[in-house]
Amino acid sequence: MKKLINSAESVVTDALRGVAAAHPDLRVDPGNRIVFRASGPRPGKVGLVSGGGSGHEPLHAGFVGYGMLDAACPGEIFTSPVPDQVIEAGAAVDGGAGVLHIVKNYTGDVLNFHMAAELCAEEGMQVASVLVDDDVAVRDSLHTAGRRGTGATVFVEKIAGALAETGAPLAEVARVAREVNARSRSFGVALSACTTPVSGKPTFELSETEVELGVGIHGEPGRSRGPMREARELVRLAVDALHEDLPVSGDVLVMVNGMGGTPLIELYVTFAEVADALADRGARAVRSLVGDYVTSLDMQGFSVTVCHLTEELTRLWDAPVQTPALRWGR
Amino acid sequence: MKKLINSAESVVTDALRGVAAAHPDLRVDPGNRIVFRASGPRPGKVGLVSGGGSGHEPLHAGFVGYGMLDAACPGEIFTSPVPDQVIEAGAAVDGGAGVLHIVKNYTGDVLNFHMAAELCAEEGMQVASVLVDDDVAVRDSLHTAGRRGTGATVFVEKIAGALAETGAPLAEVARVAREVNARSRSFGVALSACTTPVSGKPTFELSETEVELGVGIHGEPGRSRGPMREARELVRLAVDALHEDLPVSGDVLVMVNGMGGTPLIELYVTFAEVADALADRGARAVRSLVGDYVTSLDMQGFSVTVCHLTEELTRLWDAPVQTPALRWGR
Repeated sequence: MKKLINSAESVVTDALRGVAAAHPDLRVDPGNRIVFRASGPRPGKVGLVSGGGSGHEPLHAGFVGYGMLDAACPGEIFTSPVPDQVIEAGAAVDGGAGVLHIVKNYTGDVLNFHMAAELCAEEGMQVASVLVDDDVAVRDSLHTAGRRGTGATVFVEKIAGALAETGAPLAEVARVAREVNARSRSFGVALSACTTPVSGKPTFELSETEVELGVGIHGEPGRSRGPMREARELVRLAVDALHEDLPVSGDVLVMVNGMGGTPLIELYVTFAEVADALADRGARAVRSLVGDYVTSLDMQGFSVTVCHLTEELTRLWDAPVQTPALRWGR
Repeated sequence: MKKLINSAESVVTDALRGVAAAHPDLRVDPGNRIVFRASGPRPGKVGLVSGGGSGHEPLHAGFVGYGMLDAACPGEIFTSPVPDQVIEAGAAVDGGAGVLHIVKNYTGDVLNFHMAAELCAEEGMQVASVLVDDDVAVRDSLHTAGRRGTGATVFVEKIAGALAETGAPLAEVARVAREVNARSRSFGVALSACTTPVSGKPTFELSETEVELGVGIHGEPGRSRGPMREARELVRLAVDALHEDLPVSGDVLVMVNGMGGTPLIELYVTFAEVADALADRGARAVRSLVGDYVTSLDMQGFSVTVCHLTEELTRLWDAPVQTPALRWGR
């Protein structure tokens, strides 16, 4: 295992130093490991806080900024942030209109965000939580009761973030966040496992002729192992899985996400096949993202996330955003 | 070798279908393999045309759009575009103020862009060319006479593109493009080689304890092979190499570029070390990019590009840009 790090112990804090040096719009609290907008809270605006294990970059710190998150709390690699981080982040970004926690459905994250929310409520802060659980691959897994939260997190953070900028109240921002999650589905395919800095070994072994179907973002096993195939066929399997769970039709927002070790040229090949597969189902990819957004360290592979759009969701998706990893319209 | 492709033969055209499907602001001519702005040429604006072998995505197609390129001509993987592509592209984007060719210094690219420029001139088109040769690692190599063109291409395309949007004449746009190249230096480090779809084998072998210093973007050998070290030490070697060639000082624009297979968290660790190494030399990274911009398929590793800023270059860097891979300010 070769990694561009100084040590397995310092990788998260070293990366946060890099985030601080590269993005003057962000403020990093290295002690508490929190990334904020440098502009601070805006009175009357709901504050959006998310977080989770590191190793999924740009999620979440790369989505802090105008029109998206107010703060992100990174944990150690593939490890939930602690409640103190979430409490500190909320207190710092609350502009008096309350705080929304955006939580991916993993046992540790759910527990720690819940604990933080209770402690914040005791202090008189208004807190709402939305759980992201879009991955159709498996019900219950190593780290989850129910479905895993993966790619839809980007859509939830973007769309709820856009509504929050308009000054909408907490209940409304939470409502739209839940709606995005309810309308989104994801499925991932791995060509290789990932290797964490601490273990130094791949989380599972795949031969040169195999893929892992329905893989998670921590190298958790997927639904099944199958033979390696051309991109067109792998995409059909993924889109079929999404369609079985929630039939695809109409106008959709689509993300073809790289797992961290996949070249962009391959993601564009994959997107071409996804657009075709959706069209064959009568759906239209009217908005899209192609690139690395919710990664799994150095894993090779992709995930597809589809969100069934409404007029409101489309408008909020199109609204200006200004973060390291997503920016347009301003 | 596992790749998300349909076949080695169709990878470039399949990826272009994906580009067309994902980016309604772009128009793709699949027959000639050209990516244009959908808005067409603007009367009186110099047209910027670049191109080169595929496998370096988002370079160049990901930089087509407002404030940057007017057209990109992708060749096959690691293979120069043919003169016909460059001629077609130039004819389509010429708004009457002439066309600038931005050419990375590789023998095939230089030859084919030169041939295209001569044929365009015969047809009465005004054409200027700028050669990018920023890589300090080697003088002359497998594919080059003189230095290789790598990361500075992004800076040249962005800054010349910004000046072209102001309606500046061709000679001025070419002048600023050459200035950016003259003020920029790059150095790359590989933790692994890349594998082309056609060959199916890594371009060189590196053991678990070795790195390739001064690697090119086609898997060409670098200056030397050395032991794997922590990020801080690898960065010092890279920044020392830049500094030896053109002493770093003052305000600089810095790119820490991933080679395609490197997780973003590692690029942020690397950027933190680059910022520190520059500060130790008395230079300040006042503008930066961290991510995959000039890749080498699935290679693991990074390159650092430093551009010595002037007031003019900083202003043009900050100007609005609206492309798939770079966008801000509008």
